[in-house]
Amino acid sequence: MIGPEKDGPFFRSRWVDPPAGVEQLDPAVLPEGFRAGGVHCGLKGDGGTDLGLIVCDAGEPTSSILLTRNAAAAAPIRVCRDRLDQGSICAAVVNSGNANASTGEQGMADALAMRQAAAEAIGAEAEQVAVAETGVIGVPMDMESVLGGIDGLAERLSPEGAVEFSEAIMTTDQWPKQCTLRSEGVTISAQAKGAGMIEPGFATMLCFIQTDGLVEDAHAALRQAVDASFERITVDGQMSTNDTVLLQSSGASGLPLPKGLLDAVLLQLALEVVADGEGATRVGRIEVTGAADGHEAELVARRIANSPLVKTALLGRDPNWGRIAQAAGAALAGQDIGELGPEAIEAEELAGEAIEAELSLKLERGEGRAHVYFSDLTHEYIVINAEYTT
Amino acid sequence: MIGPEKDGPFFRSRWVDPPAGVEQLDPAVLPEGFRAGGVHCGLKGDGGTDLGLIVCDAGEPTSSILLTRNAAAAAPIRVCRDRLDQGSICAAVVNSGNANASTGEQGMADALAMRQAAAEAIGAEAEQVAVAETGVIGVPMDMESVLGGIDGLAERLSPEGAVEFSEAIMTTDQWPKQCTLRSEGVTISAQAKGAGMIEPGFATMLCFIQTDGLVEDAHAALRQAVDASFERITVDGQMSTNDTVLLQSSGASGLPLPKGLLDAVLLQLALEVVADGEGATRVGRIEVTGAADGHEAELVARRIANSPLVKTALLGRDPNWGRIAQAAGAALAGQDIGELGPEAIEAEELAGEAIEAELSLKLERGEGRAHVYFSDLTHEYIVINAEYTT
Repeated sequence: MIGPEKDGPFFRSRWVDPPAGVEQLDPAVLPEGFRAGGVHCGLKGDGGTDLGLIVCDAGEPTSSILLTRNAAAAAPIRVCRDRLDQGSICAAVVNSGNANASTGEQGMADALAMRQAAAEAIGAEAEQVAVAETGVIGVPMDMESVLGGIDGLAERLSPEGAVEFSEAIMTTDQWPKQCTLRSEGVTISAQAKGAGMIEPGFATMLCFIQTDGLVEDAHAALRQAVDASFERITVDGQMSTNDTVLLQSSGASGLPLPKGLLDAVLLQLALEVVADGEGATRVGRIEVTGAADGHEAELVARRIANSPLVKTALLGRDPNWGRIAQAAGAALAGQDIGELGPEAIEAEELAGEAIEAELSLKLERGEGRAHVYFSDLTHEYIVINAEYTT
Repeated sequence: MIGPEKDGPFFRSRWVDPPAGVEQLDPAVLPEGFRAGGVHCGLKGDGGTDLGLIVCDAGEPTSSILLTRNAAAAAPIRVCRDRLDQGSICAAVVNSGNANASTGEQGMADALAMRQAAAEAIGAEAEQVAVAETGVIGVPMDMESVLGGIDGLAERLSPEGAVEFSEAIMTTDQWPKQCTLRSEGVTISAQAKGAGMIEPGFATMLCFIQTDGLVEDAHAALRQAVDASFERITVDGQMSTNDTVLLQSSGASGLPLPKGLLDAVLLQLALEVVADGEGATRVGRIEVTGAADGHEAELVARRIANSPLVKTALLGRDPNWGRIAQAAGAALAGQDIGELGPEAIEAEELAGEAIEAELSLKLERGEGRAHVYFSDLTHEYIVINAEYTT
């Protein structure tokens, strides 16, 4: 099991390169203009917090939301899709414990009711509130608990409620994924969850980002940061019905969001999602170069990252480059790329002691390159998933 | 662990429907015109047989061979590819223990030398001999052992050598996969191996089929039977560098191969490969109907069959249809198929006691249908693959 370091998880990954001069704040702290909180409403049997709310008090914050492309998407995704290209999102209400997926018309009604209740509790329009849900699929919502919880939750909202909010969105996560950073007079905070059903496209998780910095084109900025972070990870090759990433800017600092800050935050949280992947003990990074084009490079990298043989080699610290060759050849089935040997594949770090292992494959077909981060496949993954019941 | 029944594995699967009146013979027996055998030459450290040879004494048997589409195919595949659309294949020489993959020019020279030695030992032309190899990737061949073994092997060939041959091609298999059947005056026998790196396209294994029946269009017959058997299975979604299926007919009976016999034999052996998949304890069959077309149905079925969440649900006897909904939605990402609930998904047999579990998913997009057989994902899979070293 990998966990965050004692002094906070940020800057833990060797692959994150934040802007110079970044200061790490208490992750409970939100940028100016935001309040958040979490409560236990009753969805989780163990008494853990399971309902979170995050609110931007700026009337119409700049915002952008990205949602799963899963064709059988859950009710909250369908509710939010209607808002994709429309006005500003000022708040997000989230439950953990029930994904409200494959719940039919009642599920849609429940997601809408949850959104309406949150909007009323904070004095906003329903259309300005995003709703996200995560947990078991196919179980009717316990709306009495949810609606009861929202009232108390609105009263708990605090400018230092980010940790509480992070904890309220966890499912099989072992630790809350969050950070608050400050650079060039601008603060950014983010909270993420995700441990299973994690595969890019984009990655199967929830992430909420707040900043008081000015964001010029929020959608482009978020898309770019997500492409380089949550779109680059895989735990189990599965795509959730509920993925949601929400960026909100209050603009309260009056200063522009420093370049690279959003990217660093999202990459760190994405890597924490992989590191906290169900049963994970190690994180690999496979970089494919020399592919015919970027698309081909990505296809090959994903095939390697999702190969159970490569993932068990990462667990077993086995520098088994033959499994990487096999996966690459399978990704390009029907073509002929010749044999791939140790001159083309760097796999030594599979055998290393470090948690993070960097691997590479060099093809000789063009200039295309891509990389993917992935977790190992362990006994604990099977324990979690063979015993976890709908 | 699943194993063959005491009275032989044939007819064990509920999904195999052989022609009426089929008689099961001792699996050691080959059809008229064939001889086979196996020896320990030294590739396997445990002293197990690791070199097999099968010969058709009819001068120019009808034959057809199918090979992996993996783009980084191994030396023996490259040697055999040259023969795909050419004359008759009278013999196959096979080693287990070394895949001779990613072994470069020396590997090609070794595969050619192995073929040449076998041809000389049986008095055939090198071009008439198929060579197949299975085992670790990226390790140079121990050709002294192989060449030494071939001499003794040629002397051991026997009309009742099929079991010996089956055993000589095993790697992580727990039992040899073989059968000899007789129907309408025609005998057919087949031997297969495969337990890991098993994914259709086609499935990652070796299979050798012999018959004394007359086969009109051997390539079409083999392609059709493989499409319905080895192309329909997955253990771990991996595509081997070494897959080979060889059909040979001596024609010695003078009678046509009964309809359905080849299909039944290959489906049974394919199901045995799944049942003996690394760590497997159960076999699932997912049937997708109502897809836009056959291609889409297959895409969805494969995504479900390769989902580690579905595979662990099969292990955990968890009738978790939500995981099937998730996988189907992921396969069709970017489209909208609505939510998929219990009215569309039959998953009860996941919870059953039986080894074989039949699952189905009904879409409402068209008439496309496809099915895939798959194994569960278990602790033993991880033990095998985290400890198995190149």
